[in-house]
Amino acid sequence: MNPSSCRRIVVIGGVAAGMKTACRLRRLDATAEITVIDRSRDISYGACPLPYYIAGLYDDLSEVRRTPAGALRDEGFFANIKGFTALTGCEALRIDRDQHQVWLRRLDDGSEQALAYDQLVLATGNEPLVPPLPGNDLDGVLPLKTMEQAARIDKLVATAHSAVIVGGGLIGLEMAEALRLRGLQVTLLEMKDQVLATALDFGMASLVHRELRAKGVNLRLAEPVRRFEGQGRVEAVITDQGRYPADLVLIAIGVRPAVQLARAAGLELGPTGAIAVNEQMQTSDPAIYAAGDCAEATDRLSGKKVYVPLGSTANKQGRVVANNLAGQTEAFAGILGSLAVKVFDLNIGRTGLSAEDAQLIGLEPVSLVTASPDIAHLYPGNKPIVIKLTADRASRRLLGAQVVGSGVVDKRVDVVATALTFGATIDQLANIDLCYAPPYAGAMDALHQAANALRNKLDGLADSLSAAAVQEKLASGEELLLLDVRSPAEYDEVRLPGATLLPLGVLRHKLAELPQDRLIVPFCKVSLRGFEAQLILQQAGFTNVRYLEGGIAAWPYELER
Amino acid sequence: MNPSSCRRIVVIGGVAAGMKTACRLRRLDATAEITVIDRSRDISYGACPLPYYIAGLYDDLSEVRRTPAGALRDEGFFANIKGFTALTGCEALRIDRDQHQVWLRRLDDGSEQALAYDQLVLATGNEPLVPPLPGNDLDGVLPLKTMEQAARIDKLVATAHSAVIVGGGLIGLEMAEALRLRGLQVTLLEMKDQVLATALDFGMASLVHRELRAKGVNLRLAEPVRRFEGQGRVEAVITDQGRYPADLVLIAIGVRPAVQLARAAGLELGPTGAIAVNEQMQTSDPAIYAAGDCAEATDRLSGKKVYVPLGSTANKQGRVVANNLAGQTEAFAGILGSLAVKVFDLNIGRTGLSAEDAQLIGLEPVSLVTASPDIAHLYPGNKPIVIKLTADRASRRLLGAQVVGSGVVDKRVDVVATALTFGATIDQLANIDLCYAPPYAGAMDALHQAANALRNKLDGLADSLSAAAVQEKLASGEELLLLDVRSPAEYDEVRLPGATLLPLGVLRHKLAELPQDRLIVPFCKVSLRGFEAQLILQQAGFTNVRYLEGGIAAWPYELER
Ligand SMILES: Cc1cc2nc3c(=O)[nH]c(=O)nc-3n(C[C@H](O)[C@H](O)[C@H](O)COP(=O)(O)OP(=O)(O)OC[C@H]3O[C@@H](n4cnc5c(N)ncnc54)[C@H](O)[C@@H]3O)c2cc1C
Ligand SMILES: Cc1cc2nc3c(=O)[nH]c(=O)nc-3n(C[C@H](O)[C@H](O)[C@H](O)COP(=O)(O)OP(=O)(O)OC[C@H]3O[C@@H](n4cnc5c(N)ncnc54)[C@H](O)[C@@H]3O)c2cc1C
Ligand SMILES: CC(C)(COP(=O)(O)OP(=O)(O)OC[C@H]1O[C@@H](n2cnc3c(N)ncnc32)[C@H](O)[C@@H]1OP(=O)(O)O)[C@@H](O)C(=O)NCCC(=O)NCCS
Ligand SMILES: CC(C)(COP(=O)(O)OP(=O)(O)OC[C@H]1O[C@@H](n2cnc3c(N)ncnc32)[C@H](O)[C@@H]1OP(=O)(O)O)[C@@H](O)C(=O)NCCC(=O)NCCS
Ligand SMILES: [Ca+2]
Ligand SMILES: [Ca+2]
Repeated sequence: MNPSSCRRIVVIGGVAAGMKTACRLRRLDATAEITVIDRSRDISYGACPLPYYIAGLYDDLSEVRRTPAGALRDEGFFANIKGFTALTGCEALRIDRDQHQVWLRRLDDGSEQALAYDQLVLATGNEPLVPPLPGNDLDGVLPLKTMEQAARIDKLVATAHSAVIVGGGLIGLEMAEALRLRGLQVTLLEMKDQVLATALDFGMASLVHRELRAKGVNLRLAEPVRRFEGQGRVEAVITDQGRYPADLVLIAIGVRPAVQLARAAGLELGPTGAIAVNEQMQTSDPAIYAAGDCAEATDRLSGKKVYVPLGSTANKQGRVVANNLAGQTEAFAGILGSLAVKVFDLNIGRTGLSAEDAQLIGLEPVSLVTASPDIAHLYPGNKPIVIKLTADRASRRLLGAQVVGSGVVDKRVDVVATALTFGATIDQLANIDLCYAPPYAGAMDALHQAANALRNKLDGLADSLSAAAVQEKLASGEELLLLDVRSPAEYDEVRLPGATLLPLGVLRHKLAELPQDRLIVPFCKVSLRGFEAQLILQQAGFTNVRYLEGGIAAWPYELER
Repeated sequence: MNPSSCRRIVVIGGVAAGMKTACRLRRLDATAEITVIDRSRDISYGACPLPYYIAGLYDDLSEVRRTPAGALRDEGFFANIKGFTALTGCEALRIDRDQHQVWLRRLDDGSEQALAYDQLVLATGNEPLVPPLPGNDLDGVLPLKTMEQAARIDKLVATAHSAVIVGGGLIGLEMAEALRLRGLQVTLLEMKDQVLATALDFGMASLVHRELRAKGVNLRLAEPVRRFEGQGRVEAVITDQGRYPADLVLIAIGVRPAVQLARAAGLELGPTGAIAVNEQMQTSDPAIYAAGDCAEATDRLSGKKVYVPLGSTANKQGRVVANNLAGQTEAFAGILGSLAVKVFDLNIGRTGLSAEDAQLIGLEPVSLVTASPDIAHLYPGNKPIVIKLTADRASRRLLGAQVVGSGVVDKRVDVVATALTFGATIDQLANIDLCYAPPYAGAMDALHQAANALRNKLDGLADSLSAAAVQEKLASGEELLLLDVRSPAEYDEVRLPGATLLPLGVLRHKLAELPQDRLIVPFCKVSLRGFEAQLILQQAGFTNVRYLEGGIAAWPYELER
């Protein structure tokens, strides 16, 4: 196709993927007739900042539709600045692939019309899931996706005392913070035994659980909702364990791809239920592309089709679609499941495969948790981060990372994401020339420390147990020696229940005091000294020693003070 | 060699590289006799935080030798915790390679002795350069490298009114900040026409110049020192342009590798003057290794030998040496010249090749400067960063990045460093699945924006001029239209001298008002709209349009307010 012919491009959906496609295409092609249609009047809005709006960070909801320079991204903006037509309040009813046209209904007057296309882009996004439970239609029970819902929630919050959040995913957690900041009593009900179940392993999620509870969220895990109660307006949420009063119930149990149009048009859906696309983001009909939350993506590591609906991916895919529409051939190489979320004072991020994911595709993952200061430990303001790295035993290829802490998390996730993109081994990761000065990192960055610690484990030099594994052994009554190798001053401040103090500096001289017949689990604040103690003990002939990964900093359970 | 035999390892130099080698080796080998010798009593100290000590961030200088848990890393620490001998106050006089021994002198009593080694590690580090100028031995003229010098400077500062810093490298800049924080009048004399000459291009350094001046540093570029004046104690620094009173003169013109021992022993030095090593960090004598600031490194991109003395590299190399000593074969793959430094409110970082470096090895580098908020523009606290990316025209391989701004710089440098390590193209960089949530990034990260902007330039879609290039044209009297496409409100706040306002939103309707015969240089705050204006004008038939890279945010020259 000649990129400068006057062909007609229709885009259905005017938020991230759709608008990115249209904007980029206009830059590449001065003459194409580009029309973006959306049933909503609120186009080109950022959904991601909506929780911050509810938290009270912006005076005006329209901020989420403004450019850095303050321009409102409305129909006029797209006409005058970006140079194409945005038809809002206009629903796409069906696609007639034979006629190459889309049937539309104007929502103001109900009128219908057909819009012809040479190429069509589906950017219909996602739809929040709502649990099919009694009372789900009560007033005050709603998900958060649109600006309208945000405005409605904001209004409810103004008079509400308590809220229940159903679902501990990204949106549920961000909203827990937002609603606490607004002074509400917040209960979070999660069906699974952990929050962020698709993003974090249980042990890492446990750190989030502690933070939520510390910030006054009534976190109820493994507790599915049974029904919503109220008279017209919601009053409480009922589970098998209890009744939680609620002036507001936020439904945040996930989303599904909006594929009705695609399915009705006979386009292929993938195994995830999202629209199947090839590398150029083309659907099973070569004249129709799909991008963003309605489309599936390929996991770069497993090669599997996955559904990870995110604004970052929607924008990248939109740009790739535009490039292909303009006659360039660009492949979207896939995603890594990278994700970041701030929850109160914790930064949380992840990328790549979990050990479980890796096992499913026949790898032999080895994981290790480390804790480190995020910047040089003697630079003021340094804060802890806990890193869980996973690598494949045989190939030593890096597989993924999960990072949680009050310190800088996103940098480590992004470095790992970049390393994963290029198939790095854990050994290569350990020696990347990352920039170093005390305000930014340690001379060996936290990620280098984490990589080396995992190499030690792979090489059989280190032997370790995660906090969860130690907790399990303790719970099962196994006799083990929890050996605290910190200083007496550190011990006075905070302790693991039942641990024995033996500072690392005297360990070499007190070996005789230690039992030969039991598992010894040395640890310190982060388990750097824990690891060293393990080596000293092993070098002295102890055969059953495994340090506690991440030490006290990564211990999500009870501590004594 | 059997890693558990009782062989003797001697390490000369007990700071970063030497201590890392010894510590790691003990972890791998319980029985080797490991001795680290240093002429100084102050071993295992962090030099990097010394400027922060002088700035007043720590009460006690010993902090720079303490572990995160507060333990002082002295001889006892290395004996009891790390498990080897540190001989301090002990100078290595010469190496007898035939006899496999090092001759030492104890500095307390002058006694000499020979220490036998099976393998020797040179970690002798660097020595600050001192300019061979009259008065360089006056009291109060000194470099900053050791703890003693830091203590001396700290004492001088207590009574000083003014200081002159000679040299605008990393240490000179950090000290400019430190001394300003302590209330001194500070003059910085730099021989070249820019600071950080080995790290940044002129245009990027100009942003640092502006910051230094804004923070009250009397920055004198292209002004070499002629002599130091004073009676016993320094009073002033003399250049061809003036006389600068000084109660303290910090010499910060760079360092050279400490290679006397190596040279005298007949070990090969490389083209940089540092000790030549192979990939396993072995010198020309296979029984002798070298690591850290006394050794050369290989640039991963150019393959050239380079000398970039940094604590990050010293630690990594030390660990590699230990692994090799323990019988593993590990290669140190080289460096990228990654660097970070904080100067007042600016974060500065770089990695990889500059355009100049790239040209020298026969590549055809294309660079572009962009400016962006560091995190989502509507998340509170977002701050600008300016990114200069360079890629090779033919292969489209990413070559390097320079990043400067008050926002988060180190993350972008580290992502680029990781991408460079694996030979990424600029196209691959643009689609890496970096994590996104508003507190951490934009949906398209600043680095994605920078990568796409450079792709546009490589593809001939964008045509642009750097600030320096525009400034040059203006200075040479070239007639060009500086076209400000921001809003009137933005224009009222701050302007480029001589620019014409024509907001992007009306540009499409006012094309007739614009000259066809002159170069038009559209710009905005960051030049996102500048780029869009360029496209609109070109799509309308204007043939001579180039946007201003980085817009006002990257403009280091005069602005009107
Ligand atoms: C509270 C919240 C926080 C979030 N935080 C993050 C985050 O931190 N990071 C991140 O990466 N992502 C985040 N997201 C997700 C991100 O917002 C989405 O991934 C992104 O909006 C997807 O963009 P899209 O264009 O594919 O689809 P959508 O945003 O779903 O837009 C689809 C559009 O299509 C329109 N449409 C659908 N069908 C039709 C039809 N038949 N006719 C007309 N119009 C139609 C809809 O009205 C809608 O406007 C968050 C989302 C929410 C709700
Ligand atoms: C103010 C300042 C700020 C810095 N900031 C940074 C930064 O932000 N990031 C970064 O990466 N790096 C930074 N550095 C550089 C970093 O400190 C060095 O790269 C690092 O210390 C090098 O370690 P090394 O072990 O190789 O050598 P050195 O630290 O130079 O140690 C060498 C040791 O060898 C001993 N020695 C030498 N010869 C003999 C002999 N013949 N006999 C006995 N002993 C001997 C010396 O006494 C010395 O203690 C900074 C340096 C300074 C001074
Ligand atoms: C903003 C939106 C309309 C897309 O518009 P867009 O014009 O493609 O995007 P931008 O304004 O960011 O970028 C415009 C161009 O400027 C370029 N650019 C960005 N910064 C630049 C700079 N400093 N200098 C030069 N060029 C720059 C970009 O590369 C892009 O060009 P390209 O794609 O042709 O390479 C669309 O993403 C949207 O509606 N977003 C809101 C919804 C959303 O993203 N939600 C999810 C997150 S909350
Ligand atoms: C600190 C110094 C003595 C080196 O000692 P070290 O014992 O090798 O280093 P660390 O204490 O950081 O790390 C010890 C080990 O714990 C591991 N480790 C670190 N954090 C860990 C954690 N949370 N869990 C498990 N293991 C961890 C590391 O991988 C390392 O083991 P390995 O090298 O065998 O893989 C040396 O670097 C030094 O003297 N530094 C000061 C000077 C300097 O670095 N200057 C330049 C910068 S200012
Ligand atoms: Ca520094
Ligand atoms: Ca978010």
